[in-house]
Amino acid sequence: MPPESPAARETLGVAHNGIALTEPLVLQSGVTLAGVTVAYQTWGTLNADKSNGVLVCHALTGDQYVIGTHPVTGKPGWWNDLVGPGKIIDTDRFFVICANVLGGCMGSTGPKDINPATGKAWGLSFPVITIPDMVQAQAKLLDHLGVRRLFCVIGGSMGAMQVLEWAHRYPERVFAAVPIAGSYRHSAQNIAFHEVGRQAIMADPDWCQGAYADEGKIPKRGLAVARMAAHITYLSETALHRKFGRRLQDRDALTYGFDADFQVESYLRHQGYTFVDRFDANSYLYITRAMDYFDLAAENNGVLAEAFTGTKVRFCLISFSSDWLFPTVESRAIVRALNAVAANVSFVEVVSDKGHDAFLLDEPEFHQTLQGFIDGSADAHGLPARRKP
Amino acid sequence: MPPESPAARETLGVAHNGIALTEPLVLQSGVTLAGVTVAYQTWGTLNADKSNGVLVCHALTGDQYVIGTHPVTGKPGWWNDLVGPGKIIDTDRFFVICANVLGGCMGSTGPKDINPATGKAWGLSFPVITIPDMVQAQAKLLDHLGVRRLFCVIGGSMGAMQVLEWAHRYPERVFAAVPIAGSYRHSAQNIAFHEVGRQAIMADPDWCQGAYADEGKIPKRGLAVARMAAHITYLSETALHRKFGRRLQDRDALTYGFDADFQVESYLRHQGYTFVDRFDANSYLYITRAMDYFDLAAENNGVLAEAFTGTKVRFCLISFSSDWLFPTVESRAIVRALNAVAANVSFVEVVSDKGHDAFLLDEPEFHQTLQGFIDGSADAHGLPARRKP
Repeated sequence: MPPESPAARETLGVAHNGIALTEPLVLQSGVTLAGVTVAYQTWGTLNADKSNGVLVCHALTGDQYVIGTHPVTGKPGWWNDLVGPGKIIDTDRFFVICANVLGGCMGSTGPKDINPATGKAWGLSFPVITIPDMVQAQAKLLDHLGVRRLFCVIGGSMGAMQVLEWAHRYPERVFAAVPIAGSYRHSAQNIAFHEVGRQAIMADPDWCQGAYADEGKIPKRGLAVARMAAHITYLSETALHRKFGRRLQDRDALTYGFDADFQVESYLRHQGYTFVDRFDANSYLYITRAMDYFDLAAENNGVLAEAFTGTKVRFCLISFSSDWLFPTVESRAIVRALNAVAANVSFVEVVSDKGHDAFLLDEPEFHQTLQGFIDGSADAHGLPARRKP
Repeated sequence: MPPESPAARETLGVAHNGIALTEPLVLQSGVTLAGVTVAYQTWGTLNADKSNGVLVCHALTGDQYVIGTHPVTGKPGWWNDLVGPGKIIDTDRFFVICANVLGGCMGSTGPKDINPATGKAWGLSFPVITIPDMVQAQAKLLDHLGVRRLFCVIGGSMGAMQVLEWAHRYPERVFAAVPIAGSYRHSAQNIAFHEVGRQAIMADPDWCQGAYADEGKIPKRGLAVARMAAHITYLSETALHRKFGRRLQDRDALTYGFDADFQVESYLRHQGYTFVDRFDANSYLYITRAMDYFDLAAENNGVLAEAFTGTKVRFCLISFSSDWLFPTVESRAIVRALNAVAANVSFVEVVSDKGHDAFLLDEPEFHQTLQGFIDGSADAHGLPARRKP
């Protein structure tokens, strides 16, 4: 019997590809979680050496649908610009894997699932999960897929946290690591923004102390407000000004009311109220908590460098100059720690006015940096060179 | 019969000093608002020349209780550091006035008051008010107090918007103007943050479409979330880091739950849930809307300088280096416009890591700058010199 077996999970009417873990996960909190499913997608083919695996780690509200058409929203995948045949993360060269994080709501086990002990949705009785827990689940998936060692692990924002955790916890399983627009620990300001989002969800009476599924309700208003607040932090002031300024929405003059007079208001409302159709409120609580708890220095006696002692992983860190959620200073702190242990590290601060969201967007300097690092690392890893167009 | 008559208004069990305007206000929206009360406090004595009046304009959630003990919260006034006998805004020298803004909830007419036409609380039927409307009401108060021309009008944040409007609309009534940490128009990002706050309030079922007073309810949860989101923007990342970092609240280790593990979470919750005891949710909607609508350039053919053509007002602008809500670039834009009309203007960016809130705090460079400007202007205005301690 294989240690893991295929499992299909359904969310919002969509069946997700996944595996059911045979062994329970022992979480960082000490809690044992049995019956875990890891939902995932892959693209490309694992080579004979099993050396061309690329693990993509998604951000807070992302999921495993990196490219193609998202099965729930019908929109393009969140990294269509970067991943695909002939693209920087070339699915003709690499075997690309992305798993929905533990605690998520796109097929991997999370608070919306049924707690086998009660027959009801977990809700707030689901154990708090952490970034290391997410990474542990991904490692089980790689075992199942036969990928002992990854060519590369890459991700932005919360994805970058997972990348760092991978390099720390499984250095022998990672050849190259690319944490983008990330941090080794969540700042006070970022915890504060997450707390506002959680409070908005918990303030919604339809949240029902987390048991909304049992009550047949959805805390849409609270989740929408949480998303709106978060969304502001993903953009720079400059980007907001360029996109919207003080322009009015489908009107010539102020209405002297509380409708969305300004385009930026209309945009935010749209962001908030479309989000609730694809995301679970409790998952939002759990995943933001995982980010808040992440502190790779604290896990290593308060010394970040100790997380990487003796590492042979090749690192490429990328930050964006207008990102105020995960500013460049956060990436620099990681670079300094890696330098302190003589790690192989390159670092680029991409000049961009697009804010944190730049890692999802078509930013030429970002893409060029990444292309250079991926191609050079593939060469160093003994993978065939990229087919030039 | 005097054009205005004394009126006492009660809020939260506290009687506020005020005047009832005899004439209706014609608002910027074109709506006529009758039966307006302006609640206010004064300190010091108007001199024989009636030339020593200082109007203090409060910020979004401030009020007329600038100094002393706040009658509702029991806490010190919001500018106790700056205003008082022997202080920079010296109540032994100046006749200091502060009015609760129109639309507020500390005694001036606002959405929580009874609409005489219906006998019910105004709620959302209260007309949208603007910064110019607030200033118009203040001008009526000054008429009542016999202050034809102010020595100085001063305020931070939304107070700075009122100061700019005063200098624009009533230049002959202002000798010196001090807009601190302000802007001539609310940015897209700031509108976005306000919109999140409004959406949080409106998402609370206890808001009852604004008619919560009739229903005997208070949308506490929504208002608390709005306050929490706003509060983050008042502090700098550095200040949050220094005050809280990732320190835990009354515990030695993470609890792996959704209690306030981190001090910054506990602080934010406290800020949110104490605010609702002193502020009205609909007032929050109306006053944020007034700030969003403010655009002194748009009021002047899109050219800010035209707002100040030929002005004889002496200006002192102050910004704070770590203020990301009203960053220095906003004050510089005003300085440039004033320079373009050859106005008398001085400008200081105070180096501070305390964020927007610095204007409320004991910042020595800020206070020194202000002391110099006030004393020099008092001299130029023919007021007696400050008694040196």
